[in-house]
Amino acid sequence: MLSSKKRLLTGIQSSGVLHVGNYMGALKPFLELYEDYDSLLMIADYHALTSLKNPKELARNTLDVAKDYIAVGLDPKKAILFKQSDVPEHTELAWIFNCLVTVPFLMQSHAYKDKVAKGLEANAGLFTYPMLMASDILLYDTAVVPVGEDQRQHIEYAREAASKFNTAFGQTFIEPKERILESSATLPGTDGKKMSKSYNNTIPLFGTDDEVRAAVMKIVTDSTPAGTPLNTETDVTFALHTQFSQNDIADLTNRYREGNIGYKESKDILVQNILSLITPMREKREALSDDEVRNIIKEGGERARVIASAKMIEVRKNIGVTV
Amino acid sequence: MLSSKKRLLTGIQSSGVLHVGNYMGALKPFLELYEDYDSLLMIADYHALTSLKNPKELARNTLDVAKDYIAVGLDPKKAILFKQSDVPEHTELAWIFNCLVTVPFLMQSHAYKDKVAKGLEANAGLFTYPMLMASDILLYDTAVVPVGEDQRQHIEYAREAASKFNTAFGQTFIEPKERILESSATLPGTDGKKMSKSYNNTIPLFGTDDEVRAAVMKIVTDSTPAGTPLNTETDVTFALHTQFSQNDIADLTNRYREGNIGYKESKDILVQNILSLITPMREKREALSDDEVRNIIKEGGERARVIASAKMIEVRKNIGVTV
Repeated sequence: MLSSKKRLLTGIQSSGVLHVGNYMGALKPFLELYEDYDSLLMIADYHALTSLKNPKELARNTLDVAKDYIAVGLDPKKAILFKQSDVPEHTELAWIFNCLVTVPFLMQSHAYKDKVAKGLEANAGLFTYPMLMASDILLYDTAVVPVGEDQRQHIEYAREAASKFNTAFGQTFIEPKERILESSATLPGTDGKKMSKSYNNTIPLFGTDDEVRAAVMKIVTDSTPAGTPLNTETDVTFALHTQFSQNDIADLTNRYREGNIGYKESKDILVQNILSLITPMREKREALSDDEVRNIIKEGGERARVIASAKMIEVRKNIGVTV
Repeated sequence: MLSSKKRLLTGIQSSGVLHVGNYMGALKPFLELYEDYDSLLMIADYHALTSLKNPKELARNTLDVAKDYIAVGLDPKKAILFKQSDVPEHTELAWIFNCLVTVPFLMQSHAYKDKVAKGLEANAGLFTYPMLMASDILLYDTAVVPVGEDQRQHIEYAREAASKFNTAFGQTFIEPKERILESSATLPGTDGKKMSKSYNNTIPLFGTDDEVRAAVMKIVTDSTPAGTPLNTETDVTFALHTQFSQNDIADLTNRYREGNIGYKESKDILVQNILSLITPMREKREALSDDEVRNIIKEGGERARVIASAKMIEVRKNIGVTV
């Protein structure tokens, strides 16, 4: 490694149109972290292929997820933003790891077991995905992988792949550590349930002023009459203020307790605070052309490949395919 | 395709020191076939990795099997001799096919079922190998795959992968046909059973004069006294004459029937005929340096990659990883 920083890798996939819950739960934590490391942000398009068989949508998703990250503040000069399919070493190393792990071992994967439990036929891509993810991580001598709790097993698989390889062919890979991201930033949606596209209760991250306002105005409220104290513990609008109105939060708390704010005014303040955060992001996103993003991804792929191909020279020698 | 010939691909792996049974059963049939096609001869080192975890042995095997084919007459200018691991498109396309087939579908593979039936744990490389082999074949728009009967299922898997891909993403791959090689050229070994390394009954293909003579002299004979007719149907030496003494076969048949040849003389003639076939091969093999073979394989890999990478541009576009 040229850098003295530890290496960090995160895989991302498009999950469609982002909402402010995605921002607080996933994008912001990454933005706060990545400059402390020698960071790679990988668009996992070959992983997406396990479930998405629509080429136009897959290609669109790749550009969109890159735009999302750049729009919210990722500096492509300070991290390698690339897509998995631009570095064929990922699938090559995944094959090698496949030769080192047994079928029953992979059958213990939660993602696979969930499919089977639901009576669905998993494809062999999903089944062997843990070895592709191991390869994503290990190719770059990654030290830290920030993931959600649900991804902990995949890092265990990566450590296992590293360990099995090192045992069979000599020390080659470092065993990565997960960095479990706190899920404290789960936001409520407009109906009070967790904010999620599937509940149709989101506030769009790149929405227009009108869209954001309309979403906030939908937030459920109780029937406390104007002029009486409002409950900061149960009010959904207030819960969102704790994320978006941090400069005003002491004042808002007082006004809630003293009963001198109504839901309408509280929502107006929330709209203003959300917009002041997201308007520059939306404008930046709108200004990004597809071609600009293509070039950023392409250049990222070239930089990633320099690292990956150097590592594969070592791997190939160690397994005996270099003659 | 630049050539107007149909494309043919064969995968080979080292099976150790060759005997004349390997030559008659596998190498010679290939040599008689390959110039009629635009032929690729692929050393399947990534396949070998499913069972071989010894880097020195794997590297040695790769050079040895290339030497074997060149020594018996393969002209590397008239075919592309390359190793699988030099073309990363193979493992990349295998990943894509993995995303198109189900786990239960791969569980029907004979190679996998045999392992499980024996109570062994198959590794995920062996399990998904049919999709790597599909990729070996389909990457080159291969029309013909000469295989033994035991490999018929793998060609079915390749057709299935082609068909599933074409259905999901539009016409991209041609469905290959197997060409089942007749197993008529199974030779008896010196004990009368099928010639096989595991029976220790072989005549070495690249043996010295003394080694070949010693092996032939070990051939079992019955106790028919000299001067009486010998049985051409049951005599092992005669069975080998039908392969190695075709110029003398009418004369030998007469002398066997008339009783004017003994086993010793018959074996002497067989030794001479085997040596006149194999001595030039052994000498050619001894003259081949490792470096010469390395260069041939390297150049073959570059030629194969031109075809494979052009195909992958089409594949990547069709699945949507080209943005």
